Order: sequence, then C-alpha cells, then structure tokens
Amino acid sequence: MKYGLKKDELDQKNKHHFFLRVKKINIRAGSAYIILINQIDADRLGIMPGDELKLDWENKSIELYTDISSDLVKEGEFGLFLDIFDKFDIKENELLRLSFAKRAPSIKAIYKKLRGEVLNFNEVYQIIRDIVDRRLNELEITFFVAPSFNEKNIDFNEVYYMTKSVAMLGDTFDFGDMVADKHSTGGLPGNRVTPIIIPIVASYGICIPKTSSRSITSPAGTADTLETIMNVEFSSDEIREIVKKNNACMVWGGALKLAPADDIIIQITKELGIEPYSKMVVSVMAKKVAMGIKHLVIDIPVAKGAKISDIRTAKKIEKLFMFLARKFDIKTKVITSKSFGPIGRGIGPSLEMRDVMRVLQQKEDRPLDLENKAIKLAGYILEMTGVAKKGKGIEKAKINLKNGLAFQKMTDIINSQKGDRNVDSEDILVGKYSYGYVARKDGIVKAINNADIVELCSLLGAPQLKGSGIYLNKNVAEKYKEGDILFTMYSESETRLNLAKEALEKLDSIYM
Amino acid sequence: MKYGLKKDELDQKNKHHFFLRVKKINIRAGSAYIILINQIDADRLGIMPGDELKLDWENKSIELYTDISSDLVKEGEFGLFLDIFDKFDIKENELLRLSFAKRAPSIKAIYKKLRGEVLNFNEVYQIIRDIVDRRLNELEITFFVAPSFNEKNIDFNEVYYMTKSVAMLGDTFDFGDMVADKHSTGGLPGNRVTPIIIPIVASYGICIPKTSSRSITSPAGTADTLETIMNVEFSSDEIREIVKKNNACMVWGGALKLAPADDIIIQITKELGIEPYSKMVVSVMAKKVAMGIKHLVIDIPVAKGAKISDIRTAKKIEKLFMFLARKFDIKTKVITSKSFGPIGRGIGPSLEMRDVMRVLQQKEDRPLDLENKAIKLAGYILEMTGVAKKGKGIEKAKINLKNGLAFQKMTDIINSQKGDRNVDSEDILVGKYSYGYVARKDGIVKAINNADIVELCSLLGAPQLKGSGIYLNKNVAEKYKEGDILFTMYSESETRLNLAKEALEKLDSIYM
Repeated sequence: MKYGLKKDELDQKNKHHFFLRVKKINIRAGSAYIILINQIDADRLGIMPGDELKLDWENKSIELYTDISSDLVKEGEFGLFLDIFDKFDIKENELLRLSFAKRAPSIKAIYKKLRGEVLNFNEVYQIIRDIVDRRLNELEITFFVAPSFNEKNIDFNEVYYMTKSVAMLGDTFDFGDMVADKHSTGGLPGNRVTPIIIPIVASYGICIPKTSSRSITSPAGTADTLETIMNVEFSSDEIREIVKKNNACMVWGGALKLAPADDIIIQITKELGIEPYSKMVVSVMAKKVAMGIKHLVIDIPVAKGAKISDIRTAKKIEKLFMFLARKFDIKTKVITSKSFGPIGRGIGPSLEMRDVMRVLQQKEDRPLDLENKAIKLAGYILEMTGVAKKGKGIEKAKINLKNGLAFQKMTDIINSQKGDRNVDSEDILVGKYSYGYVARKDGIVKAINNADIVELCSLLGAPQLKGSGIYLNKNVAEKYKEGDILFTMYSESETRLNLAKEALEKLDSIYM
Repeated sequence: MKYGLKKDELDQKNKHHFFLRVKKINIRAGSAYIILINQIDADRLGIMPGDELKLDWENKSIELYTDISSDLVKEGEFGLFLDIFDKFDIKENELLRLSFAKRAPSIKAIYKKLRGEVLNFNEVYQIIRDIVDRRLNELEITFFVAPSFNEKNIDFNEVYYMTKSVAMLGDTFDFGDMVADKHSTGGLPGNRVTPIIIPIVASYGICIPKTSSRSITSPAGTADTLETIMNVEFSSDEIREIVKKNNACMVWGGALKLAPADDIIIQITKELGIEPYSKMVVSVMAKKVAMGIKHLVIDIPVAKGAKISDIRTAKKIEKLFMFLARKFDIKTKVITSKSFGPIGRGIGPSLEMRDVMRVLQQKEDRPLDLENKAIKLAGYILEMTGVAKKGKGIEKAKINLKNGLAFQKMTDIINSQKGDRNVDSEDILVGKYSYGYVARKDGIVKAINNADIVELCSLLGAPQLKGSGIYLNKNVAEKYKEGDILFTMYSESETRLNLAKEALEKLDSIYM
C-alpha cells in the first residue's frame, strides 16, 4: 500500500532547517568537530547533546557534533571552536543555515567490511568520499580501519580500490614521464635519507617532486625535520612552480589536498601507535599515483623495535607494493635492509636536520652510515632512470655529493621554500634542557633498542617540540670507556626532560 | 649493559606532577573527558593539545584529554566540563594534582585481538578493567569492539572470559536460590512485556529483581518506558530494600555499578546503530551473573527489520546463551518467536507505558498481542521455578493478571520506586504535536516494517523525548477503510514532527 503527504505538508518539508548566528569560541579542541547550541534553542528545535548537525555556507558544508551550553552562546547563536575557524573560511557573526545531518550512506559498507566481507569499488569509493567530506566521524572511521589489522581481511583488489579512491579524491599532478621518487616505510629512528637523496637526484636533472608526511608514531617525519630550516606547506600551484625551478621540492603532503582521506585515517591509527601494513601501503601508493610518479624506489628498513621487525613481514609488504605498482604502471624497486639501531646520530626534527646538513656540507663529524644509505638509494634511482649504467649508480651519486652540486641544489630548494640559503648545519638549534647518559664501564655498542629510543623521544616532546630528541654520542659498533657519554637527551621543556629521566630508570636495555 | 639515574636525580622523579586549581566550565559535552589548560601553563609544562592527563583527588583518578584555551581558564587553573562535575565528586576551586597519563597496559591485548588472535582470561580482564577505569578512550575501545562484528572472530571461551570480567568488575547481588529473570534481546518495536511479566511472577512469591537498559538502537528501552511513571535509578542498597519488600524491582541497570564496562561499550556500538551479537550476549549474561539469577527465560524476537531478522542467527545466539548458561550454572530457556510487525500499539516510552498499564488494568482497549506474549513468558518462569506444573504456566499466569493481583503488585512496585501508585493508563501524556496517517484505499495490514517505524520514532525524538513515538491505530491482521488513520506520529518537538513527515515521503513500504 501507498500513502503520502498532502500538498501543503510537502511545502513545509524544509522546516527543519534553521538559522543561527555563528560565534567564535576561544577553545582549541584538536580534531573534534563541535557545535555549541544554547539550551533555549536546543529545546525549541528539539536538538539534543551529541546530535549531528549540518552547517551550510557558500556551497560548502560540514557536519558537527552538538554540545549544549547556556553560558558560551546566547539564544539565537551557535559557537564553533578555533580549529574550525582555522580550517574553514567562516566569517564571525554571520547568520548561517543549520540542519539535522543524515547518516552517511557508506555506513552500510562499513558494516559489511566489519562482518568480514570484501568490498567492491563502489563501496570503497563511497566510504573514502564520506571520509573526505567529513560525513563519517572518528568512531565510524575506526570501525572501517579496524579489520585491516587482521591479515586475513586483506584482499589485494580491495587495497587497489582503496588506493585508487584515495588518490582520485584529492589533487593530482602531472610532471611528465621522467618523474622519480623515493619512499621509506619508516619506523626506524633517524634514517633521514630523503633530504640527501632528493638534491643528489635533482642535481642530475631528474624530476623528483617529493611529498613527505609528518610523524605518525616516530620522533620525526621528514616534513617535521625539514620544517626546522624551511617552509614545507605550499599550495599545489606553488609546488608546480618550485619543481619547475629546481626539478625538485620537499614539501609536506598534508598541506596539499593530496590523498586527503589518508591524513584523516592516520589520525585514527595514531591512537594505537600501530598502523596496519595494508593501510601504510595505500597511504604511500595513493600519494605516488596522485603525484604522477613513474619510477619509484621503496626502502623497507627492518629492525628490532622498528615499524617492521622481521623479513617475513617485509616480504609481504613488498608483494603488495609490487601488485599496486603493476596496477598503476609505476616502475618500482623495493629494497629491504636490516639494521641494529638508528641510522645517523640525531633523532628528533632539529637533531636529524643537523645530521642531514652535515652530510650535504661534507663536514667531518657527519654520520657516515646515513651518508652511505642515502647514496645507495639515490644510486638506484639514477640507474632506473638511465642516468647511470647498471651497477654504477652509487658511484654517480657520490660524485655530486662530493663536488658540492648536491649541496648547491639543496640551497636552491631551501631558497625556493622560503628558508635561508646560507644556513649551516651548526645553526640548527636543539633543546636547551639536556642530559647526558654516562657509561658505567668500558664496552662496545652491539645494538640499540629502537622502541626505547622512540619512547624516550616522545616523552621529550618530539616531534611537536622541534629541538627535543636524542643524540647518539655512541652508535652501533662504536667502543666506549667508563665515564663516556653514550647518548644525550634534549628537550625544550624541563618537565618533559624529567619525565624522560624517570622513564630511563625502567629501561635497562637501550644499549646492548 | 646497565646505566641508571644518580641519587639526586631519582629524587626529582616526581617533578612531572603539577598542581592547578579546578574551574567549572559551563559546557555539557556528552561523554568526552576533556580538560582545559591555559596556554601559559601548557608552554611551561610542555603540555600539548590531545595529551592525556591524569587527575588525582581523594584516592580517585580519571584520565582526560587536553584542550588548550587562554580565555576560559586563567594561568594556574584548569577547566572541567559540567558532565565531569555531574559524574564525580570534585569540588570547585580546589588545588588538584595532575600528571601525564601513561598508555593503558591493555593496548597490547587490543592489538593482539585486532590481529585476529584469541585472548586469554588475563588479557580480557585487563582490557575490561581499563575500560571501567577509563584508561582506554573511545577510539581504543572501538578497536577492541570492531573484530566482534565478524563471526569468524568469535571464540566461545573468550566470550565467557569477557562475561565473567564484565560481571566481576562491578557490583554483585545475592538474593538466594529462587531468583528468576526474563530477558528479551529486543530490537522489535513495542514488545514491552517486562513490566507485565514482573508483577505476575512476583505476585506468586518468586524473587525477580529486574534490571533493564535504556534504548540502544530502539525507540525505547524498558528503563526509558518505566521512567515515565516511576523512578528507575536506585543505589544497590535501595534495590535490596525494594526487592525485600516486593519480591521484585524494575530498575535501570546503568544506575548501578552493574557491569559498568558494558554501559561504556554500548556507547560505542550505538554509533553504528548495530551491535555484534556476541557483545549483546555478554551484556545480557554479565548482568544476570552479577544479579545472582538462577532461572532465566530469554525471548529472542525474530522479525524483518528487527535486531534479529532470521532464525539462523537466532539459533546461533541461542547456542552462545546456552554455552554461558552452563558455564555459570543458570537454568535457562530460550524462546524464539517470529513476528510480522511491532507487538502492542504504542512505540516510544510514554506510548508503550500506556499499553502496559492498559494490560495490567485489563482495560478494554488493551493490546491483546502484548498481553498474550507476556502471559506466555511469565508462564515459562512459573513452570521453571515449580510454581506451575509443566504445561500449566500460561493458565497460572492468567489467573493473577485477571484477578488484579498482578496489578496490585505493580502498584506496590510503583510506590516503592517513588511513583504515584494511583496512576491510571490514561494519565500518561504523549507528545502534543501529532499527525495521523490516512489510508488511501481499503485493505488489511499484512505486515509492518519495523525498521521504518524505528527510523521514524528516532526522528520524532524517541526515546529522549518521552512523549514522542508512534501509535499503531491499525496493527497486523487488522482491516482498514479508505480515510481510516493507520498510525499516528507524536512528538514533543514541532521541528522533529516535520522532520519525520519529510522522511515519510521516502518510505513507501511501512505498511504491507
């Protein structure tokens, strides 16, 4: 049977839209999308705490969660926190349209995924679109992400659909055919090879438009590190300009609308401090697809306490990378390398940047392990792109590092990215509170526990406090004597330095 | 190798505790645990937005998420929202101790679960304890809950560990051996048999201490319904008193510290509007174990659009219930019954309570389908407990309903639970905004779509707005003529009535 509304009732159907005046509330609430409604309006309109409301303005719309307050907003007003004003172009005191939000259409697909079923392209695309449009909230996204932690739930085609959707639903670039990139799966402290590789490769005329992430679970991401001496946030058009000038850029991917779904999903996995490996692969490949990369070297560091700790897992990740590389037609080489401790001496944004500059400037106290790894990876790219003959890449990479052409390219990039091109490695400031740990007897460093180093750096305030971190006065395979400082903890906050000192008491296996 | 802090540094280890003065902030934020810190203190102490801080007072402690605000709290102060003050005994303007919270120990077990492994008792207990202690946040709990949606991840022993942990980590009761209970898995609109069964059973001298829940995904829970005419929130000691006096109580389980972990987990699954069936079974059985129930009848309504829509799923749920019943030594009978629409005519708290009172008062316009179902379930309990001979339960249940003894027991319970014992079914007020839906031709109701009814009730504001809901003027198997009202929508909010009217346009299959 059928029934329906009568004509005059149909005309009233828009009655559940209502208008209130927006007020700026001086609270910074992180990623929460909150709207404050006055109790009187809430009662009048039937709004309850926790209700999702949709705010529309100038063809844009976002969904927000309702808090009720009679103090902070008056009748006829609604309040938004500073974060929302930072993020969106909303003018204070304007009268804006609100309505009750409807449940996101992709909830059904999320439930299907939770039940253990494989999603088709349309379902995956719908979910990713709703994530980007902020129609799914944090808990709903968590439900979507959770099954990926179980390997049994990973379907290669579904991962491909996801990569494609994430790449499609954001900005895309086209720098032509001779476009290379390098990626490290990360999780190994230090290991800041990117800012060494990019200038080497670009100095040979290869286009290498590098986008990097901020830290997820580590003491610093490449973007956090670079930011100590140059700007990393640029618009798509500015990046096209920088790449045109230098054959390269080194920017934060998050400032672009490059794979925006990925940035939102990362906020969720961050919570557990662990990322499912399929999500990591999606994250990497979606950005490469969006950037129009055609030649790719992927570095998978394997180390105890690092993100990937065994060769078996590394091989599975490699398999998934290669599957996607074939699907997207990207020439790809995966390098798996075992480590027994961090690479380089500095861990934390400023300390890592100092290491990088010491290598590029060929200073005497530069970390050679970092230099050698960067040269090796740069060499592979030079071979893949035909700049160097097979087996001659490392040699070629070394040339432009030694003769200063790579450093010159670096200063050009710094200059284009609004940094000081005359910056010297020793200009980079580290935290003013420090504490040196002293050896109680003579010995040799066999290995360094990466997980402990990461934990301490987090307590010290890295990566948010740029100068916080650890400097390894003694690295793996180095000898020390009783009384030598083994490593130095730096922090910009005295409270955090004390917190790290307390934690040290309970860690008795950092150096092995 | 080993190293350690020197003596004087050890003495400083408590430096990361700090004291600030608590201020009440006039915001109600639902379930979020937020602490506001002034920017100056944040900089001084190295606190960042999103940091988890631990607040200690009088042997109690909770963990909170940091927001930074320079407006709402001054230097030296911290702000808490109204919800926290409602929930905890914190005095305004006191100087209280704060520290950086450490990651919950059960995170590792959650990760193990996510990987698809089965947890042992200790791991499950640790997670549930951290949930109760608020050491796990919403996203972390979501990660724990998510795998349960996939049947392949359900391990019966793990479900037993969880039930046991949830029951243990809360209040427990002991009313002796002759303690019965009834439970419905719910999800079928209306079906408010509990407030009819309890007085019937208790009128025969059987102890039946009923705890009910509030709505999870339905237009009303039993507690929401009862609350329209009596108090449902009592302390454990008050409940012991009420049960002593009446052989029965009908209270909201959430007001007790009965299975408190369950109440927190329900807030998470609510988000999706769907509950994994193993979680539902845990929720039910943990509360029965905590209440000391020895005889139990479980009603599993099966209906299109209801929580459980097929017999196959109902059988799986029954199997899990019986497994736990054996483990906990509870004599249990599971009844599975198919329906083609709601049971009773009223849907929504006030409308359902009115139906219940009409049955207990034996009014002429009482819904007979509701009465018959209640009598049947009460009959089973009377047989299990030996009050009635096998096959004679229904007859016995009918006697005390017809002769008014059950209604008299109901008025005693209402009186003990601070309601008006003289309340009449027609005193119960329903929403003042209403809209009757009219048949366009003659016909007979073959079935009613439960999911559509639930959706409309939610738009109308049920269960939060008690008087909101739907009254079925015509129920399944009833004839109607063109122009007859089929059902009436009620709301306490005009906006919400209009919203429901708009939604109706898109639903063309409520009545079949």
